[in-house]
Amino acid sequence: MEKDVAGDIDGWIRLVSLSPPSLQDNTADADRLKNQLKRQLNTESVEIDLSVLRELPFRLRDWGYSARCVVVKERDADLWHLTGISNPLENQRIVGVAVDLGTSRVVIRLVELSKGEILIETSFDNPQLSVGPDVLTRIHACDQPGGLEKLNRMIIDELNQRIQNACNACGIDTSDVFFMALAGNTSMTHLFMGLSPKWLIREPYIPVINSPDVQKADAYGLQINPAGRVFILPNIGSYFGGDLIAGILHSGLSQQSNPAILVDVGTNAEVVLGNESWLVACAGAAGPALEGGVAQIGMMAGPGVIDRLRIDPGTRVFQIHTIDEMQPIGICGSGMIDLAANLFLTDMIDLRGRFVPEVCGKKLVMQSSIPYLEIVSADESGTGQPLMISQADMDSLIRSKAAMYTILETITESVGMALADLKTFHVAGTFGAFIDPVSAVTIGMLPDLPPETFQTLGNSSL
Amino acid sequence: MEKDVAGDIDGWIRLVSLSPPSLQDNTADADRLKNQLKRQLNTESVEIDLSVLRELPFRLRDWGYSARCVVVKERDADLWHLTGISNPLENQRIVGVAVDLGTSRVVIRLVELSKGEILIETSFDNPQLSVGPDVLTRIHACDQPGGLEKLNRMIIDELNQRIQNACNACGIDTSDVFFMALAGNTSMTHLFMGLSPKWLIREPYIPVINSPDVQKADAYGLQINPAGRVFILPNIGSYFGGDLIAGILHSGLSQQSNPAILVDVGTNAEVVLGNESWLVACAGAAGPALEGGVAQIGMMAGPGVIDRLRIDPGTRVFQIHTIDEMQPIGICGSGMIDLAANLFLTDMIDLRGRFVPEVCGKKLVMQSSIPYLEIVSADESGTGQPLMISQADMDSLIRSKAAMYTILETITESVGMALADLKTFHVAGTFGAFIDPVSAVTIGMLPDLPPETFQTLGNSSL
Repeated sequence: MEKDVAGDIDGWIRLVSLSPPSLQDNTADADRLKNQLKRQLNTESVEIDLSVLRELPFRLRDWGYSARCVVVKERDADLWHLTGISNPLENQRIVGVAVDLGTSRVVIRLVELSKGEILIETSFDNPQLSVGPDVLTRIHACDQPGGLEKLNRMIIDELNQRIQNACNACGIDTSDVFFMALAGNTSMTHLFMGLSPKWLIREPYIPVINSPDVQKADAYGLQINPAGRVFILPNIGSYFGGDLIAGILHSGLSQQSNPAILVDVGTNAEVVLGNESWLVACAGAAGPALEGGVAQIGMMAGPGVIDRLRIDPGTRVFQIHTIDEMQPIGICGSGMIDLAANLFLTDMIDLRGRFVPEVCGKKLVMQSSIPYLEIVSADESGTGQPLMISQADMDSLIRSKAAMYTILETITESVGMALADLKTFHVAGTFGAFIDPVSAVTIGMLPDLPPETFQTLGNSSL
Repeated sequence: MEKDVAGDIDGWIRLVSLSPPSLQDNTADADRLKNQLKRQLNTESVEIDLSVLRELPFRLRDWGYSARCVVVKERDADLWHLTGISNPLENQRIVGVAVDLGTSRVVIRLVELSKGEILIETSFDNPQLSVGPDVLTRIHACDQPGGLEKLNRMIIDELNQRIQNACNACGIDTSDVFFMALAGNTSMTHLFMGLSPKWLIREPYIPVINSPDVQKADAYGLQINPAGRVFILPNIGSYFGGDLIAGILHSGLSQQSNPAILVDVGTNAEVVLGNESWLVACAGAAGPALEGGVAQIGMMAGPGVIDRLRIDPGTRVFQIHTIDEMQPIGICGSGMIDLAANLFLTDMIDLRGRFVPEVCGKKLVMQSSIPYLEIVSADESGTGQPLMISQADMDSLIRSKAAMYTILETITESVGMALADLKTFHVAGTFGAFIDPVSAVTIGMLPDLPPETFQTLGNSSL
C-alpha cells in the first residue's frame, strides 16, 4: 500500500492500520481502533464520536482495516477524540477554518491541514453592524427580550453561509471541515457562544468565561462537520480578547527577552507590552474615529476607498491611491493618517490641526460656517460629489491619535520605561496592517522611533 | 445558609460556594466556578456544557454565588464535566434512570440520586417485538434500507415516551434526569446506539464496540436533560452483553473466593462461572422455547397468565395461580416449568416427557393426531377456550431444559469442576426471577443442588 504522507504528520491526522478481526481475536471494531490509536498517540484514553462510530464498521471493512483518522486532544486532560475517518488511499481534504471575528469585519480562512495549505481567504462585514457599529450598542441590544439570541444567530448564520460559499469555491464539502479556531474580543466571542455580555460593561466587569472549552461545532449550530471541534482563543478580561492573544503568539512577544510592544488597531485599540517574563495590557476605543461614521467621507477599506495619499510639497497636488484603483468614493483610516501627516508636512494644518486658509487656498470652503477641505473634486470623484474633510473630522482624528499615544505612553510609563526604549513595535489589526508607520509618527499617533522598529503583522488572528 | 445535605455526598452532586467577583478579583464566572470544582474534585480539568454555561451568570447571581452542581467524570481520563446546576436552597431533584433493555421486555427505574431513593419502576414490551421476537430476525431486518434507523427509532421513541410518563407520575421534569445507565445484550445495545448489528452474526462475530463511551443524551435523541450523560454497560463479545456484566456486579460473583455460577435466563440464557480470579461465560437461546410463540398457549408474564402451578398428587387436580389472580389466558415460563415438574411428579408424563394416557385420563385429547393435555377447561378459562398443552410443546420444553442443563454442564466441565461443587447458584433475568428452583431441578433444567444453593437476583440490570 502506498504510504500516505499526510498520515505521518504529528497532530490532527493519523494513519492507522489494524490487524483484521478473527475468531482468535474478536475484539470489536471500535475497541480495536482505539487500542491502536492509544499506542500511536501515547495516551490512556480515546473516545469516538457517535457519528463516526456509526459508519466505522462499514468503512473499516471497505478500507481493509486502515483509516486516516482525525483526532483532537482535550486541552487539559489526557483524552483524545476521534472526530473523523477517511479513506487512506484517497487524499480526502481535512480542513480547518480560522476566523478573525472583528467588531466590524470578519475574516475567514480555510486551511488544508495535512499540507498546511491555505485554500481560500475571504472577509465580510460583521452582520451585527446592523444592530450597532460599536460593542456597547450591541451589548445593550442583548438586554431586549430575544436580543442575545438574535445577535448570536446573526453571526452564526453569516459564518455558516460564508463558510459554505468558501467551501463551494474550493470544491470541498462543509463536512470536510473538522476544526474551527476563532479569535475575537471578549464581547464578540460571548455573542458567538450565545453568552450574555451583560456583565462585561457593569462593574466589576466580569466575563461569563475567560477560557472557553473546546466544543463540538453542532453545539454552536455551526454547519461544518457536526463532530468538528471549535477552539476559541481565551480572553484575559472583559476588554482583552482572544484576538490579542493570537497577536501575542504571532508576534512572539512572549518569547523575547527584550521588551516589545504590540498595538492591535481595529475598531478598538489594544496594546500589550512585555517580554518572556511579563506582559501588561490595556485597551480603549480608537478606530471608530478613523473609520466610517466619524469622518463624513470616512469608510471601511473597500474598492474605491483612499488608502494611501501624498501631497506634493511643491505643488500641493493631492496624489491619491484607492483600493482596486477605482474612482475615489471615501477614505479609510490609513488614508486619513496619510492625509493628516501630509497636511502637516505641507503646512496646510498647523500644530493644533487647524486648516491654514492662506496655504489651503481655494481648496478650503465654508459650509454652515464650518471649514471643509476638498480632497477630491467632483469631476474626479466616484460619487459625483467632491470628497471633503471638515475641521470637525480633523479634530476627531487629533483626539484619536492623542488617545492612542496616551495609551502607549501610559502603558510604558506604568512599567518604568520610555517609548524610546522599545526595540520592536508590532502593529497588528485589519486597520493597523495598512497604516504607514511614518505617517502615524508624523501626526504623533505612534512614537518617533526609527522606521525599522515598526513591524506590521497583518491579521494576527488568523 | 442552611447546609444542603445532598451537597455533601461524594459523587455526582456537589455543593459549591464561591467568593463573589470584585474589581480586585475579576475572574470570569465560569473560570471561578471551575477553579472551585477542581479543588473539590481534586482534578486538573473541569469542562462546562454549553447549555449550563449559558445560564450560569444569571444563576450564580440569583443564588449568591452558590450552586448545587451535577458533575460526571470521564471513565478513563482525569476530566470532569459540569452537566447541570441547581439552586442550593431548593432541593431540586437530580434524577438518574436505569434501563434494563431486554429483547422482549424493557424495565426502567427512576432514582433520585442525592438520596438514592427509587421514585418509580415500570416495564413494557420492547417495541421491536413487532419486527421480530428474537434477536436474529431484528438483525436481519437491519439489512433492509432504513431498517437499522427504524429499529433504533422504535426503542428511542418508546424510551422517551415511557420516561416522560414516569417523570409525569413522579411530578418531575425530564430535564431533571441527568443520567441514564443502560444494560442490555450486545444486539440490543447496538440497536439502541444506532450501530449496525450486521457483523454480530457473521463469522468472526465482531461487535462495533465493546465498551461504549459515555455520550450526551441528545446524541442518542433521548429527551432527558440534553447535557445528561448515558452510560452503557460494556459487552464482552457479540453474545455477552452489559446485562450480564450488571448481573456479575450485582451478584458479587467476581468478588468471592469460592467459584459460583450466574444464570441469566431471559429470551436468551447466559451463564457465567467464576470467582474473584477468573470468569468464564457462554450463552445460547433458551427462553423462547418457554414463552410466547413456542408453546401454543405460552405467553409472556402478564395479567391472567399462569405463573405458578401445582398438581395435587392424590386427586390430580390442577391448582393454578395467575398474575393479578385473573381468569387464566395462557402460561409463562415459570408456569411451564412448574407444570412439567408436577406432571412428572404425578406420573402424568414419563421420563422422556411423553404424556401417559392411562394416568392423564380424559384430560388428554387427540387433535389432528397430536395428543393435547387440558390444563384449564373452557368454563374456567379467561379466553372461553380450554387451555391445552400439546406433546410438541412438551418436547420443546424438554429440548430447552436440556440445552440449559448442557450449557451448565459444559461450562463447569470446561474448568474441571462438577455442578455439585458449586456452593452458590445465582438465577437472574426477568424470567429467572420467577422460576421456582425446585421445579427447575425436578425437570432437570437446573442441577440437583440443595435448595439454599439457589439465589434469585431479581432484575440485576437495574
